[in-house]
Amino acid sequence: MDKGKRARVDETEEDELDIDPEVADAIQQLQEVQDQLEKVNEEASDAVLEVEQRFNKVRRPLYDTRGAVIASISDFWLTAWLSHPMLGTLLSEEDQMVFKHLDAISVEEFSDIKSGYQIIFTWHENPYFEDKQLSKVFKFSDDGTVSVSGTQPKWKPGMDLTARQGEPEKTNGRKRRQEERECSFFVWFSETMQTDVFLEGPDRVAEVIKDDLWTNPLKYFTQDGEEDEGFEEETSHD
Amino acid sequence: MDKGKRARVDETEEDELDIDPEVADAIQQLQEVQDQLEKVNEEASDAVLEVEQRFNKVRRPLYDTRGAVIASISDFWLTAWLSHPMLGTLLSEEDQMVFKHLDAISVEEFSDIKSGYQIIFTWHENPYFEDKQLSKVFKFSDDGTVSVSGTQPKWKPGMDLTARQGEPEKTNGRKRRQEERECSFFVWFSETMQTDVFLEGPDRVAEVIKDDLWTNPLKYFTQDGEEDEGFEEETSHD
Ligand SMILES: [Ca+2]
Ligand SMILES: [Ca+2]
Ligand SMILES: [Mg+2]
Ligand SMILES: [Mg+2]
Repeated sequence: MDKGKRARVDETEEDELDIDPEVADAIQQLQEVQDQLEKVNEEASDAVLEVEQRFNKVRRPLYDTRGAVIASISDFWLTAWLSHPMLGTLLSEEDQMVFKHLDAISVEEFSDIKSGYQIIFTWHENPYFEDKQLSKVFKFSDDGTVSVSGTQPKWKPGMDLTARQGEPEKTNGRKRRQEERECSFFVWFSETMQTDVFLEGPDRVAEVIKDDLWTNPLKYFTQDGEEDEGFEEETSHD
Repeated sequence: MDKGKRARVDETEEDELDIDPEVADAIQQLQEVQDQLEKVNEEASDAVLEVEQRFNKVRRPLYDTRGAVIASISDFWLTAWLSHPMLGTLLSEEDQMVFKHLDAISVEEFSDIKSGYQIIFTWHENPYFEDKQLSKVFKFSDDGTVSVSGTQPKWKPGMDLTARQGEPEKTNGRKRRQEERECSFFVWFSETMQTDVFLEGPDRVAEVIKDDLWTNPLKYFTQDGEEDEGFEEETSHD
C-alpha cells in the first residue's frame, strides 16, 4: 500500500494524481495541523527571544565590569585560553607570543539574538599585525545556513603566521606535519565557509569560545596545570 | 608575568600562595561577577523553560490530532522515514519490513523540558518482537552529561535483526561490510553510552527525529523520490 507515497501537498496537482481520496483528505488535514504547529512554534521562539533579550540587557553591565577587571590582570586571556582543554591545543608557540598582546575577548550577540553573534579579539600595538581588532561573525539565516566572515589580519612584513605553515620545518630530524599544533590558530579567522548548521554543526571553536570560555573564563584562568593532565604550560617560563 | 597563573579561587589557600595581592583582589572581584552572571543565567533559563512549557501545552493537542490523522494513512511513518535524507539510509531491507508494523512515532519532552525527552515507537502485533513500544530516553544532568537508556526489543525466536549482523553475507561475490546499510537500525535502541553533551554532541539520530522528522513528518511523507537524488525507494514495489 503505497498510495500515500505519491501524494503531494500541492493542491493544484492533487486531483491529477492517482491518490485515494481518503488519503488526500488526510494529507490536507495534516497540512492544516502543521500550519497551526508552525504558528505556535513561531510564537514560542519569539517569546523565548524576548526573554533572552531581556536577560542580555541584565548581563551586559556585568560583562563590562568583568572586562575592566580582566584588563588589570596580565595575560589573563592567554592563561585562561591555554588552560582550556580544547582551546589550549590550538595555539602554536608563535601564536602564544601573539596572544601576549591580547587585551580582550568579547562575545556579542546581535540584538535580535537569533540572527547571529560575533567574537571580537582586541589587541594592543604588536609586532605581528596592524589590526586593533580581529573578529569573526556568524550570521544565521532562516533557511538554516550560517554565513561566516572574519577579519583577515593585516600582517606586518614577514610576520604572517598563517603563511608559514606551507614551509615544512625540520623538527627532531623529521618533517613537522602541517595538521599538528604548529598550524597557526589565526587561520581560524579566514575559515569562512558557508555551513549547513543542521547537518554539519557550526564552527566548533567559536561555539566553545561563546558557550564555555566566555561564560566563565575565570574557571580556566584559576585552573592549575597540575589538574589538567596532558596540557603543557609552555608559556610559564617566558 | 605569570602571577595570575598560580592563583586559586579557594580563599583558604590564597594567602599561602605566592600571588600579587592586586591580582588576588582582581580574582576575587571576578569571582563575584561570575556568581552574579550565574544567577542571571539561571533566572534566564528558568524563564525560557516557563515559556517552553507554556507552548508545549499548546502543541500537545495539535500533536494528538496529528497522530490520529497519521494513523489513518498506511505506512505513513515508514514512508516519511525513508524519504528523510539522513534517516532513510539507516533502515536495512529487513528493518523496512519491521517498520511496516509501526503505528506511531512520538517525541515527548519531560514536563520540566530541561531534564530530557523520550522517543517512543509504537508497534502493532508483528512477527519480529513482543514489544508494543520501543523507546529511547535521554536524561540530562546539570553537569552536562546525558544518560541514555533504551528498550532492548524482546525478539521472537530467530528474529533478532541486531544479532544477524555478526554473520558476514556474500553480496555480489564480496563480503558485505558490517558498517554498511545492512546494519540494523534496531541497534540504536541499545546504544546507551553516557555521553558528554558539550564535547561530543548527543545522539545524532535522536536529534534528527526530534528536531526534524517530528517537527514536520508531512514534509518528508509528501516528498517525491524524484526530488531527492541518491535515495532508493526500496519499498515502493512491495
Ligand atoms: Ca593551567
Ligand atoms: Ca520519497
Ligand atoms: Mg594582556
Ligand atoms: Mg502503519
